[in-house]
Amino acid sequence: MTAFAFDLLSTDKAARRGRVTTAHGTVETPCFMATGTAATVKAMTVESVRATGAELAICNTYHLMLRPGAERVAELGGLHKFMNWHGPILTDSGGYQVMSLAGLRKMDEHGVVFQSHVDGSKHELTPERSMEIQYLLDSNITMCLDECTQNGATRQEANESMQRSMRWAERCRKVFVRREGYGQFGIVQGSVYPDLREESVRALSAMEFEGFGIGGLAIGEGQKMMFDVLDFTLPHIQTDKPRYMMGCGTPSDLVGSVQRGIDMFDCVMPTRSGRTGKAFIRRGSLNIRNARHAADPRPIDDTCTCPTCQNYSRAYLHHLFRCEEILGAMLLTHHNLHYYQNLMREMRGAIEAGQMEAYAAQFHDDQAKGDIAAL
Amino acid sequence: MTAFAFDLLSTDKAARRGRVTTAHGTVETPCFMATGTAATVKAMTVESVRATGAELAICNTYHLMLRPGAERVAELGGLHKFMNWHGPILTDSGGYQVMSLAGLRKMDEHGVVFQSHVDGSKHELTPERSMEIQYLLDSNITMCLDECTQNGATRQEANESMQRSMRWAERCRKVFVRREGYGQFGIVQGSVYPDLREESVRALSAMEFEGFGIGGLAIGEGQKMMFDVLDFTLPHIQTDKPRYMMGCGTPSDLVGSVQRGIDMFDCVMPTRSGRTGKAFIRRGSLNIRNARHAADPRPIDDTCTCPTCQNYSRAYLHHLFRCEEILGAMLLTHHNLHYYQNLMREMRGAIEAGQMEAYAAQFHDDQAKGDIAAL
Repeated sequence: MTAFAFDLLSTDKAARRGRVTTAHGTVETPCFMATGTAATVKAMTVESVRATGAELAICNTYHLMLRPGAERVAELGGLHKFMNWHGPILTDSGGYQVMSLAGLRKMDEHGVVFQSHVDGSKHELTPERSMEIQYLLDSNITMCLDECTQNGATRQEANESMQRSMRWAERCRKVFVRREGYGQFGIVQGSVYPDLREESVRALSAMEFEGFGIGGLAIGEGQKMMFDVLDFTLPHIQTDKPRYMMGCGTPSDLVGSVQRGIDMFDCVMPTRSGRTGKAFIRRGSLNIRNARHAADPRPIDDTCTCPTCQNYSRAYLHHLFRCEEILGAMLLTHHNLHYYQNLMREMRGAIEAGQMEAYAAQFHDDQAKGDIAAL
Repeated sequence: MTAFAFDLLSTDKAARRGRVTTAHGTVETPCFMATGTAATVKAMTVESVRATGAELAICNTYHLMLRPGAERVAELGGLHKFMNWHGPILTDSGGYQVMSLAGLRKMDEHGVVFQSHVDGSKHELTPERSMEIQYLLDSNITMCLDECTQNGATRQEANESMQRSMRWAERCRKVFVRREGYGQFGIVQGSVYPDLREESVRALSAMEFEGFGIGGLAIGEGQKMMFDVLDFTLPHIQTDKPRYMMGCGTPSDLVGSVQRGIDMFDCVMPTRSGRTGKAFIRRGSLNIRNARHAADPRPIDDTCTCPTCQNYSRAYLHHLFRCEEILGAMLLTHHNLHYYQNLMREMRGAIEAGQMEAYAAQFHDDQAKGDIAAL
């Protein structure tokens, strides 16, 4: 069996080049996870997901506990077999989704009682149950159940919320079933308050998790504030554990966060955009539904090596979206995931070469150029 | 350049094993086309379509003349390049779709004026324009514009309709641009009336088309009547030209039609069913949405070698359909197309071996068995 491990291979200022080792394989960092919410990366086969270079998939406790149910996934041999993804899997705790249900949930110190958005049935999620579900799913990286403190919280609100998350983290750690090649991450909260963030890191460090999630960011605070929080939080985290920035972000968010020392990311942006017509390109982004693409024989991005850009014109993709053809979502999602994975690949190379600052400067220059108009 | 050709390789009673040669490659017959209506086989990549064994794609004049327009496809280099399908393409004439518009169309001897179902804009389709569109699309096999005589037509109605289709066929043949490796098929009409069908075959034979479509079937007349029509029609068709049964059918329709001497088929059934949850299996069919599959670890069909059956349980596919995940449509469409292509492959082998009758008997036995219930 392989022990769960994080190896820090090299650094370039605060940026880090590393490797996470799990029972189901390794993940080169900085990495961007493939978002497989309901045990599927939307509009992608697992073969295509792998072809983009993704090594880690993230699935969602909330969605899977409702359908098909954690016990059923366990009976069927676990999530890897269920979804035919044999690489490492991280699962989030379900807390973020449950807390977003607003009118449909009631939270106290014990946990959260909520109504399913699917059929209105009642469910309970506690730190202990979330850990049990993630164990049943056979997740390689289990995330603690926490409360994602709302953007704009006062210091007192943020403190109370963070303290509860730390008490929950302790309960999560207590029931976590240790297995070779499996790890558990605590989640740093504290909103935008430096002392609260520092206190949260200290509390989690004492519990000796295998890694740190950075929670409560990318929820409307803006990029500048988000980077500020990273700047005053990350230096308190021990360097020999991976740092995972949850639910983030745009390509620019990723570059800035890597420069500050983040190792892992997940976000629905490339997949969701792929279904609604937005494409990420080296020179920014474009919406393929726009009429200006209707007769354009060029690929989405002529610097891109993905199968979509190698084989299809903007005109064809525009046609597919206009006709609401599923293949449009498939091809554009593939392109976007390839774009994100390529960005991570390039950043890993830049860190190894000690060129991360120059890389970031070039990235921002390219993004600012904007799409080239058709002839 | 390669000449358009049909080679009859072997026969087994009325069943025929052949090969169609086009400028874009060959097609082993009997064959089932991949339905690519709007220049995409719904929920499939072209790589996956090819992996099922499909060699010929069918696209639709009606859909493509409205979006993106035939002139635009021509500007972009033709349909093969547009949709990245470099094998042979057959296009239908648009007639069947236009005539289905009921209130939205007006037909006379000249052609049909109709309103687009997309935006209500007015369009005209004549034999000459349909041929021009299919030329612009760069279709390898152009179908004549005809009138699909309605099921239940009286002898007089069927005769008038067939006579018009024959006059239109003559206009189509007159404007067809001959190119190496490209062919044009006339379409036999005449409803359920033996003498009208015979007259239609005679008329088309005189025009020396490269092949024959059999129209006006699989429109509600029932399998027995459909087979009767084949029985009294096909013997009149010269043996050295391919016969294409349009818009048909179920697996059982295909087996019976091959036994009667049909070489080519197209039908939306495997792709449409793949999006709505119906799977074709050796022992009949099943609906994956059915609750009995929710915990079933078995593949859809344990005799099937498709990637879906090799890698995914019924429980997973049930989950995908229950969550309305696009991957459900992708995986089930792939399975269904593989099923259809495998059926054609097996029939080609059976004809070569002189075992078509035994094969058909075994097929019907297997289908009658029905799905095996979960343990």
